[in-house]
Amino acid sequence: MSRAAIYPSDRVTLREVGLRDGLQLTSAFPSTEDKLEWLRREHAAGVRHFELGSFLPASRFPQFADLPTLLAEAEALDGLHTAALALNDRGLADACASPVGEIVCVVSATEEHSQANIRRSRAQSVDLVRRAAQMRRPEVLVNAGVAMALGCSITGEVDAAEVLRLAEACLEAGADIVGIADTVGYAGPREVAALCDGMSQLCGDRPFIVHLHDTRGTGIANAAAALDHGARVLDGSLGGLGGCPFAPGATGNVVFEDLVYLCERMGFATGIDIEGLVTARPILQRGMPGEVLYGALARSGPPDKLNWRA
Amino acid sequence: MSRAAIYPSDRVTLREVGLRDGLQLTSAFPSTEDKLEWLRREHAAGVRHFELGSFLPASRFPQFADLPTLLAEAEALDGLHTAALALNDRGLADACASPVGEIVCVVSATEEHSQANIRRSRAQSVDLVRRAAQMRRPEVLVNAGVAMALGCSITGEVDAAEVLRLAEACLEAGADIVGIADTVGYAGPREVAALCDGMSQLCGDRPFIVHLHDTRGTGIANAAAALDHGARVLDGSLGGLGGCPFAPGATGNVVFEDLVYLCERMGFATGIDIEGLVTARPILQRGMPGEVLYGALARSGPPDKLNWRA
Repeated sequence: MSRAAIYPSDRVTLREVGLRDGLQLTSAFPSTEDKLEWLRREHAAGVRHFELGSFLPASRFPQFADLPTLLAEAEALDGLHTAALALNDRGLADACASPVGEIVCVVSATEEHSQANIRRSRAQSVDLVRRAAQMRRPEVLVNAGVAMALGCSITGEVDAAEVLRLAEACLEAGADIVGIADTVGYAGPREVAALCDGMSQLCGDRPFIVHLHDTRGTGIANAAAALDHGARVLDGSLGGLGGCPFAPGATGNVVFEDLVYLCERMGFATGIDIEGLVTARPILQRGMPGEVLYGALARSGPPDKLNWRA
Repeated sequence: MSRAAIYPSDRVTLREVGLRDGLQLTSAFPSTEDKLEWLRREHAAGVRHFELGSFLPASRFPQFADLPTLLAEAEALDGLHTAALALNDRGLADACASPVGEIVCVVSATEEHSQANIRRSRAQSVDLVRRAAQMRRPEVLVNAGVAMALGCSITGEVDAAEVLRLAEACLEAGADIVGIADTVGYAGPREVAALCDGMSQLCGDRPFIVHLHDTRGTGIANAAAALDHGARVLDGSLGGLGGCPFAPGATGNVVFEDLVYLCERMGFATGIDIEGLVTARPILQRGMPGEVLYGALARSGPPDKLNWRA
């Protein structure tokens, strides 16, 4: 697949990030076999974009130790596009030596969070994006996401102009696609709308990624605002798996199956079979019986009397 | 309080409907003492508008048998505005003999649903609104809600022009305020936006009510769309109590505490203390241990670093 075809600008793309962001805070995690079944089931349901993990030391992050296996197995799944995080040079080297289709780098929206979280400046994070763009094989995408873009766990408010400046710096550093993340779930729909307007202007014909959390119940409302304001790539996780490091027990990523329903109901075809997603939820419960799975659609099913698909 | 002051047009009013809509489908219901504590706790948190039940035969609807007690006790709570449903002439007579502040009548959006649900025509339901407007004491409001306004359990699609025609007929019949209800949770934000535009045009300076269910995860997104398109009165229930008669186990009304957060985050002051709501949730669990309570904000709390209030 050509690089431009991976994120088309004329339709909505939904990325399943549960295998990465969904497992950052869980006390248990699925076996490799369960992860592969999760991946295959969602692939069969039409999902094509997956974050599969982070290139991090297996000793400290055992939940991502099987990333090489997942990447190898994913190659057998037709049209599947894989992504994984590289948060430092060692991770970047591992990523470049792997068959991953997209290297995801992260830049904090605020200097305060950047220093507190990784003891590096935002400029240093942009430099990692640059090195990723230089080192990756030609067919590999570089994705740079601005974390805390809609609210910061340290500073609270975040200046949208700063977020746009950082996204622009990442594009100039060679990122193929940039994104904004409401990492701690602070945003309401109006903040999302305003920042997406800015991102639309910055990115022009290129799509950008919006990564939302449902920490305070606004996840789907924020996704609707993003779609209304030019976003064409949205992240979610099956059952809303994930959490918030600053609010123990809080809800996590936007619920993937509810996000699919929202998109279809708003007229954006996703190519994803919701029922196929819903029937994959037990895989998560099997490996992580202590995790609460969220989502309304899994309880109700889609409307049976209505043509709700785009 | 004057009738016009009960639903001001220049600010948002949130109605707690859990004591009515929240208890329509539950297998158990709270004791009268627990209902009163629920009422008092939410009143202390700043909530002023409550649907307290339906005027229905106590033998068949035991969950509403204590409505007279609730109405009597509510009079002691400063500034509290009470509402209850009257679905037929007997209920209307009981309502008029009670101290209820607002009589709520319901008209189905489709003739098919009206006949199937209550074996009466929509025109007959509008006639009940007319009789309510004639019989009520001068200080009592008549509220007419169009059920299935955004999707019908029988016909599926609903013609928005028909909904507006029915709302207009209710206003002509003497209703003080009209509303639209997504009774089965079929709507997406675009349908809500379009119908609210029509309602804004119909009602002019008068506010209208939007009653949403979160059956398919779009409840808060639909509330945001409603606020963006002129709605100033929204319904919700603590913990999202309630359900859907056509989808057993489905999520119910929009979660009240998440709705408060959305409004504040969008710049609409509610006068409601979210923490006060969250601490009232255990009352519901006490009387209905089998009911699932929903809501993200109760898990996370509001953002601690951000000035999120309007």
